[in-house]
This record gives sequence, structure tokens and C-alpha cells, in this order.
Amino acid sequence: MRTSIATVCLSGTLEEKMRACAAAGFDGIEIFEQDLIVSPHSPEEIRGLAAELDLSLDLFQPFRDFEGVTEELLLENLYRAEAKFALMNRLGIDTMLVCSNVATATVDDDDVAASQLRRMGEVAAGYGIRLAYEALAWGKYVNDFEHAQRIVDLADHPNVGTCLDSFHILSRGADPAGIEKIPAEKIFFVQLADAPELSLDVLSWSRHYRVFPGEGAFDLTGFMTHLVRSGYNGPVSLEVFNDVFRQTAEERTAVDAMRSLIWLEERTSVALADHGGAPGNDGGFPAYPMELATLPAVAQPTGFNFAEVKAGDSGAVEELLFQLGLHCEGRHRTKPVQLWSAGGARVIINQQQARGLAPAVSALGLDVQDPLAAASRAVQLKAQPVSRRSQADEAVLQAVSAPDSTEIFLCEATGDGTVAWAEEFGSDGVVEGEPLITHIDHINLSQPWQHFDEAVLFYESTLSLVPRASQEVPSPMGLVRSQVMCSSDGAVRLALNIAPMGLEQPHGGADYPQHVAFACRDVVALARQARQRGLDFLPVPANYYEDLQARFRLGDDMLDVLQSLNLLYDRDEDGEFLHFYTATVGNVFFEVVERRARYDGYGAPNAPVRLASQYQRARSGRRDG
Amino acid sequence: MRTSIATVCLSGTLEEKMRACAAAGFDGIEIFEQDLIVSPHSPEEIRGLAAELDLSLDLFQPFRDFEGVTEELLLENLYRAEAKFALMNRLGIDTMLVCSNVATATVDDDDVAASQLRRMGEVAAGYGIRLAYEALAWGKYVNDFEHAQRIVDLADHPNVGTCLDSFHILSRGADPAGIEKIPAEKIFFVQLADAPELSLDVLSWSRHYRVFPGEGAFDLTGFMTHLVRSGYNGPVSLEVFNDVFRQTAEERTAVDAMRSLIWLEERTSVALADHGGAPGNDGGFPAYPMELATLPAVAQPTGFNFAEVKAGDSGAVEELLFQLGLHCEGRHRTKPVQLWSAGGARVIINQQQARGLAPAVSALGLDVQDPLAAASRAVQLKAQPVSRRSQADEAVLQAVSAPDSTEIFLCEATGDGTVAWAEEFGSDGVVEGEPLITHIDHINLSQPWQHFDEAVLFYESTLSLVPRASQEVPSPMGLVRSQVMCSSDGAVRLALNIAPMGLEQPHGGADYPQHVAFACRDVVALARQARQRGLDFLPVPANYYEDLQARFRLGDDMLDVLQSLNLLYDRDEDGEFLHFYTATVGNVFFEVVERRARYDGYGAPNAPVRLASQYQRARSGRRDG
Repeated sequence: MRTSIATVCLSGTLEEKMRACAAAGFDGIEIFEQDLIVSPHSPEEIRGLAAELDLSLDLFQPFRDFEGVTEELLLENLYRAEAKFALMNRLGIDTMLVCSNVATATVDDDDVAASQLRRMGEVAAGYGIRLAYEALAWGKYVNDFEHAQRIVDLADHPNVGTCLDSFHILSRGADPAGIEKIPAEKIFFVQLADAPELSLDVLSWSRHYRVFPGEGAFDLTGFMTHLVRSGYNGPVSLEVFNDVFRQTAEERTAVDAMRSLIWLEERTSVALADHGGAPGNDGGFPAYPMELATLPAVAQPTGFNFAEVKAGDSGAVEELLFQLGLHCEGRHRTKPVQLWSAGGARVIINQQQARGLAPAVSALGLDVQDPLAAASRAVQLKAQPVSRRSQADEAVLQAVSAPDSTEIFLCEATGDGTVAWAEEFGSDGVVEGEPLITHIDHINLSQPWQHFDEAVLFYESTLSLVPRASQEVPSPMGLVRSQVMCSSDGAVRLALNIAPMGLEQPHGGADYPQHVAFACRDVVALARQARQRGLDFLPVPANYYEDLQARFRLGDDMLDVLQSLNLLYDRDEDGEFLHFYTATVGNVFFEVVERRARYDGYGAPNAPVRLASQYQRARSGRRDG
Repeated sequence: MRTSIATVCLSGTLEEKMRACAAAGFDGIEIFEQDLIVSPHSPEEIRGLAAELDLSLDLFQPFRDFEGVTEELLLENLYRAEAKFALMNRLGIDTMLVCSNVATATVDDDDVAASQLRRMGEVAAGYGIRLAYEALAWGKYVNDFEHAQRIVDLADHPNVGTCLDSFHILSRGADPAGIEKIPAEKIFFVQLADAPELSLDVLSWSRHYRVFPGEGAFDLTGFMTHLVRSGYNGPVSLEVFNDVFRQTAEERTAVDAMRSLIWLEERTSVALADHGGAPGNDGGFPAYPMELATLPAVAQPTGFNFAEVKAGDSGAVEELLFQLGLHCEGRHRTKPVQLWSAGGARVIINQQQARGLAPAVSALGLDVQDPLAAASRAVQLKAQPVSRRSQADEAVLQAVSAPDSTEIFLCEATGDGTVAWAEEFGSDGVVEGEPLITHIDHINLSQPWQHFDEAVLFYESTLSLVPRASQEVPSPMGLVRSQVMCSSDGAVRLALNIAPMGLEQPHGGADYPQHVAFACRDVVALARQARQRGLDFLPVPANYYEDLQARFRLGDDMLDVLQSLNLLYDRDEDGEFLHFYTATVGNVFFEVVERRARYDGYGAPNAPVRLASQYQRARSGRRDG
């Protein structure tokens, strides 16, 4: 599949955008006219830069408000078009996007529109240029792709064809199956965009909230299967207007974009095979001209192998882990790294190159069937491999960097609770006895607001984690958006949070801390033990327990137990949830959870209590300090 | 009018919110239950704090999902309600908001809902508590206020009344005139919120995008006139869920909120008088129980008196002004301040307490009929007065601080082009001859994103400037939102811009610069003169002129003139617009504009060209530097 992207998706100057697209591996680009107009570079210089970067210039866009007009206006429009054709010749671009008329159309007549497009096609032919006519979802008279196709058919000119844009088609709820009826040679261009479910007017939705395929709610795999079946084999290009991308570094947006296309290729390939027809298939099924790349298939991760906390001074973290009942298994034989564990929960404390760093979650390990295949898949999906120096006799771990820079290690699942690398700490990673803590339940990672959609796409495409419904939780500094990414059996749960900016908070506003939650078979017993060991619990206000009583009518005994241990409680139709939080050290804290029956949530009603208590603590800490 | 505000409108802890409300002058507050639950303070402590701050506690809210349920669930709900009544007694709050059932209602029967509310009322009566039943716009069976009122009537209990919320009523397009039919003694509470026009699902609209009255598109004055006519005389309270307010310093949000209520009181008073019935009117019209405060009426400003640039080193600004043909009239007799002018355009360069400051627009002066009345009005609307030290024999200028800290001076309009204060510079402020520059056309002020709605409300309420339709302009760092505030005759034009955050721009991203635009009778002549004087024009790319030719078919001569002088051009059905920009120094630049015929815009199609050129310059400046 030939990949392309519109320059309007990215921030920066035209030159910066082009360099970012080339670096991310795109085959070509669409030049958004405005990007050229504001550029100090001549068309010839842009053409030269594209050649140097090995980028094809696939489309010049958009040409607006052409057809369905009076003869007088048509002549003006033809003058304007011809100036652009001459410009395109200088750029070396042979296809122009012509959007259905939004503003100036006054003649609602397909024959008139077609004859005007034919006249445009005749002029274009003189310059060797093809016109790709696209129905905008808010076009005045022409707003669906089948209508646009009828006009293209009526125009009946070899230089007039169609441009299909998934946003304009899917946002109107149209059935993309009709794409298969369009002759492939009349599909001059294809643009893809996804979008979240929003009941917003379609113009605002389109201009601000488009996202890359896989980041929204549209069925782009379905769209692509129809496109492949139509026989189309031209560029598949991203055209995504998004307020966040416009403000984000263009290099990383381009990588995010490329990842989305690669993943879409794979899913399209799988969908076609499922429906009995893969490209190049020899078994009697039709072979399609478009070749689709595939990726190593990997199973979902089966558990957390470890969590890593990086810290300059790790004393406070060690104390918390000790109080929670974890045990230091040993120190790495060559590095300033410790392994702490309890049951199947392992925490690595890493002091390498950490001088002055406040404690923070820096890495996590996932158990996977085939670490090499999983890492290869992630890297093909444009994840950055992580290089950590290791000695010749040490376990070689596969790792990639997530969008928020957390390192994701892909570890071999042994099935027996041992971990191969633990021997470097003089341990087999298995703890005697029956510790109260059984494993890591979930890890909570805060995300910069600009990279949230990118992070969700990353975890879904590389690791096959599935996004659950997202939630918003009030805090004293604003709403915190929370998105859980989960393996199907719940063995791996990552909670991604976007913290509010709190830019003008009078009291500062520390980074939103991250945390590791341990699963526990008896949280009351563990909390008592932790209290004996002097744990600094996150305090829970008395008003919370009064409300709990009003909501759940718990017995007085139970309420006293909860309150005396700063335990939080939730209940739903699936079961009960008891949990507590430690104080925050640096940028990290810990949680211990007990899930009763089939409770599958995270105590969301309690999150505001935690956030307010942490806010109070941060304030008084700053006030005292 | 008794003013109140829900604690959910503000950021911070409950204690911080209460202090901010008291400081802004509110009579009372609604306690949002969640704010109490997460507070470490007991109900008795909150009650004590309210007494200390002289705030009444007007409402406890919300109680959810009560009515329209099975008998079994009703008993649970009554248990939950009674726990809250006991809590309210401890707080000393006598009114509870009961929202129509969203989640658990299964019985769509008004008689059942009414009888269940009556039973709740009977229990509430034992605690001396009144229930204010409110139809949520997304209530399962009850979602309009007239329906809720029918249920209240059926319930027929003295402790069961209604709560009216302007958002829930106006967002559904309901006619608020029906409010007048409700007996005043059954209206237990009133909540106000405004909202922008958005085609968004009503729940998201309500939870994220509510704004204070006057900041949105709802007709809250109409709503209030119906309310006053109903005879209601209880608290009028703000309940505004807004993602920005949640992140903004609570003290300033509270002031913004209070301003909106004061202005609404005035407009309601005017509207009632216009319709022949003012409260307390003796002329035979009905007198209403609610007393509405009024403000000094002021006419719109009639022009710019001056713009002030503050700078540590003012050499570069002086050079630009000289090159544009302004003339230094003199230095202030006691302060390091200069007056520059041309025609009716005056620029003050202020070096007081400016050591190390990059040049920036710091103040502007407006010509008004009655400076004292205008300043008094602004201060009553919670604007901060500005105190500048002045000598006994200097003109006393009235000034207030705008939300972005720009100082707004209210100057006496003389009508003859002189300004009283100019004599302190040894000048009468009148320039001989016929300079090309005639006056200040507009001033462009960048706004922090958190204060945009506040700024619009500020300029509209204090100075009677009118907001024009807002626009969004693409820049290499994201979309810039632009909102012009204008006097009716166009003599005063302020353009407010919110710059994108560009948080992660690889190339940094300076503050979005502000500018002063001078009106000119011959921009070509002025540009030529400026070129002779060595002006550093903001460069305009050649590609722009090619596009201009394609769009407007200008003559080659004209195009050459424009291009040789870096002039930008626009044309619409009202006329033509020619303008150019200077280089940016510090955080300020200048523009010169010529309006031909009745052109009334700002060359919006050219704004992306300016932004891209400034971005290029800032980049290369940083690269070179």
C-alpha cells in the first residue's frame, strides 16, 4: 500500500513537515495549499526537496467552490484553476483535490455541475492534471460520495475522477460498500481519517477532532476492505485536522500517523482473509492489486513481569515496599539495582543514572509468549527500541519506549512463576510462604495531554491491549481523564490518566503522580501489618465514611474497620472492592487492592477522595516546606 | 437580589472555595456534596467557617435518583435521604436539591413520582428541610421544568417545591415564560448558567461547557424577567460546570462569577423597565419583591486616546515609530515616559519600573464621555482599579486592570483632538500638517486561554463593547482564536487572541505578540516612506502574491507595488484593505492599515501569512542567536 499524508496534519513549516514525513517512512504527501502560500520556498525548491527526501508529491489540495455556479463565476473559477494548474506543473504534482461547492453554488443541477467539471477537466488535460472530485459532508448540493460519483460519471472526462474521504463518508453514516461499485480507475485519490463519537455539528467535528485511523470510533477496516475490493491501488493518504496535532512536534505526529496506517493495513489484511479473499491468494479467491503489509501476530500479554521505579534516593520507596510486606530479594550483581517482591509481584528499584531524580515509575515488564516476535511487531509499528547496556552473560531483554517514555519490557512468560533474569539478583524470583500480596493488579501511568490518543493506539496496536470506556474524575485541580487498557482476561491492566493542566493553580500543582497497585488476598490483614510497620497511609476524611454508610448501609463494625485503616470501599453487581493508598514519595505511590467475587473496576467513586487528599497533602507539604 | 454560587464552579478545597466566594462578595453558597465528602473538615467546622465569612449556606446538592422507583428501592433511598437530612442539620442548611431520576427510575407515572416525593417531604419536614425538585435535561422520565412542576403540585406537600435551572430549561429550547405561572412560594431555589451555542449532546454540553451568565448564548435576561415577575425573592445562584474554571485560580473565577451576576441584575432591571414595570416602580406598574441593583449607565467609548508600550530598552520601538512617521512630542516632565504621535494616533513609551522588560503593550486609553462614571461602573463590576502615582498638578486618570492585566485608562473625550494630559509632555497633543497616519485603527491583545470568556465579559459589561463573530486562524503552531470587541461605530476595535499552547513545539514558541494597528490614508505612500527610513518589514512570501493574482486578478502594476512593499491585500463586497506589518521587537509589533470604501474587517485571509512569517523569523532568530 502506498502511504501518504496531508501536510495539514502536522505543525511547523512546510519544510519541517516534509522532513518529518520522510523520517516516519511515508511514501508521499499531499501539499495543503495554504502551507505552500505561507512558505518562503518557491514551488521548484519544494519539488527539489521532495526529490531529495524521496517523497512523492501525490496531491495538491484543496480547490474550493468550483461547480454549480453561474457562467460568469465559472469563468473566474477557470481562471483561478488554470493558475493553480500552472503552479502544479512547477511542483510536479499531477492530481488536484476539488471539493464539492460549499459557498458559491447556486445551481442545484447535476448536469450543470458535470458539464462545468468537464470544462475544468479539459483545461486540466492541457496541463496533464487529473481532478479528484470529493463530496464534502457539508457541501451545499453535493454531500455524499455516491452523488459525487454520479456527477463524475456524467462529466465523462478522463481527467475527472473521484476522491474518497472516509470522514466525509462515515460521518454521515453512509454505507461504504458502494465503493466497490466505482471503477478503480475512476478513484483518483483516497483520504483517511478517523474520529471519536461526538454529537457535534459535522463541520466542527471535522475541523478539530479528526484523529488517525484506530484512534477514533469509525470502522476504517471495513472502509478499507471495500476500497481494496474496488481494485484501487493508488495512495492511501491521511487527512486529519486536529487541534492537538497542530500544536505537537511534527516528527512525533508523523510517527503516530504512520503507525496508524501500518496497523490499518494489517487489520485490513486480516479482515479480507477472514472473508475469504486475501490479496495475492492463490486458492481461487480474487487477488487484489493493492498489496497489504502484515505484522508478526502476537498473543496478548499474560501478566506483569515487574514494575520498575527509578530514584536517586530510593530510601523512601524501599520503606514503603517493606511496610507493604515486600521483601528485598537482592541487589544486581553489577548495577545499583534492587529486586523487591511478594508473591508474583516484583518491583525493581533502579538507581542507575538517577542522581537527583525523584522516584517515578520508569519501566514495566510484561509476560509474553514470544518476546522476539512481540518486539519485532512493536518496532515495525514504529516503536523506539530501548537500548540498555548489559553484560555478555546477562539476560537480553526486549524493550521499547512508550509514547510517555515509559520503557516496556517484553519478557518470556515461564508459566511457573520464575523469571529468568532474577538470578542476576541471586534469586529465582520465587518467594516462600503465602504472602498476602499475590501479584501486580494494575499500573497507573500519567500521560501528557498531547499524547493521549497516541498512547492508546500504541498499546492497542503493539500489545493488543483493549481500551475500556474512559472516565472523568473530578479533582480539586480539574477533571482527570482515565482510560484503562486491558488484556481480555484482566491479567494486564494499565490505567492511563491525563491530568488537568492546572496552569494557574495558586498552589502550584505537582506532576500527577503514577502508581503501582498490588493485588492482595486480605487487604484488612495487610493494612494492619502495614500500620504496625509504620506505613504513612493516605488519609481518608471522616465525611467519606458517613457517605459510605448512607449509600451502602455497611455494618458499624465493618465501617469502623475501614475507617480505622483508611480503607476505601466500593460495591457493584459483580462484587466488592477494598483498597488503600500509601503516601506519595516523589512522583510515585502504591495502592493495595482486594477484589471480592467478580468485581472488575477500580473504585472509581473513590478516586475524587484520593485526589483531594493528595492535593491537601501536597499543599500542606508545600506550606510546611 | 441575593447572590449565591455552587462550590462546584471553583477549583481548590472546600475551604479555599468558601474564602474565594466571600472575598468576591457573594451572599451565600451551595455546597456540592462531593466537596464536603472529600474535605477533612467536619460539617460543624464548615458551618462555623461560613458564619465567620458571613456566607449563608443556601443549598445542599445534589440528591440523585430518588423518585419513580420500586417500593424496595424507595426505602433504600429514604434511608439515604434521612442520613443526608441529619448531615444538613449539622451544616445548618435547610434546602436540598433533588434532581429528577436519571439512572434508577422504572416507573413512568407522575402519581407515583409525586407520592414518593411527598413521602420524602414528610421525612424532610421532621428535620425542617425543604426539597427543591429539579428536572434535569437528561432525566429519564422527567426532563422539563413544567413537568417537574406538575409533579410538585401533585405531591402537594409544603416541604416539596421546585428548583429552576436556566441551563436545563434553555438548553432544551423550552419557553421560560411558564415560570411566571409557578406560585413564587413553590420556587425553592434558582440556579443560573449560560452556555455557548454548541451542537453537542446535552450532557457533555452541561458538564464541560457551561459558562457564567453573559459569557454564552442563552437569553438569561429574558429568563430573569420571568423569574422576577413570578414574585420569587430567594437566592439566585450560579451552577456552572466548566473544564476551564475547574483549573483556574478560585479567587479570580469567583470575581468573574460575581461580575456576571451584577451585570445580569442590571440588564434585567433595564429589560423590566423597558417593558413597563420596574421593581419598586410607583407609577402604577407592579412592584416585584426582588430588588435589583443598577449601575452607572455609560456610553460606548468614542475612540482610542493612546496606546502604551512598556519597555526596558525602548530604542527599537522608537525606531519603528519613527520609520512609520510618528514623531516624538516630548518627554514627561517628571517620569521616563515619552509621547509619540501622528494625526490622532498617540503612543506612550513607558520606561518606568521597566528594567529588563521586553517591549509589550501595557495599557490603552479610551475616550469616554464621563471618565468618573465609567470608572465607577467598572469598579462596581469588580474591575481592579489601577493606582499610578502622580504629582499633585498632574491630570488624574481613571484606570482599571483588564483580566490579562492590560491597564485600561478612561480619558475625557474633548472632541477637538486635544488631550488634557499631553501638556505634561510639553505638547497639546495636536500635530501640524496632514500626516498619513490618522488614528489608531485597532489594538490586538493576546489572552491567556483560561481567561478568554472572562475578558469578553469584562469588555462587554464594563465598556459596552460588542463581541463580533469569533474566528480561528491557522498558524504553524496551531489555531489562533480571534475575537473582535467593537464599539458600534467601529471607532474602538480590540482584537482578543488566544494563542495555541504549542507546548511541545520543538522550536520553543515565544509568547504570542501583541500589536497596535494605525489607520492610514495612503498605505502605499507610507510604506515607501518607511522603506526609505529603513523599516524592517515583516516579509511576505512570493507564493502569496501568486495566489492573490489567482484569486483577485489584480493588475500586474498593482501586484508589483504590493509585492515590492510587502503589502497584504483583501477585498470583499464592502471594499478593499491594504496593510503591512513591522518586524516584532520584544513582544510587540505594529501594523499600518488602509481601509478603502466600507471595508470593515481585518484581512483575516492574510493572518496565516503573517503568523507563518513571524514563526519563520522567530525560528531563524533563535537559530542565529
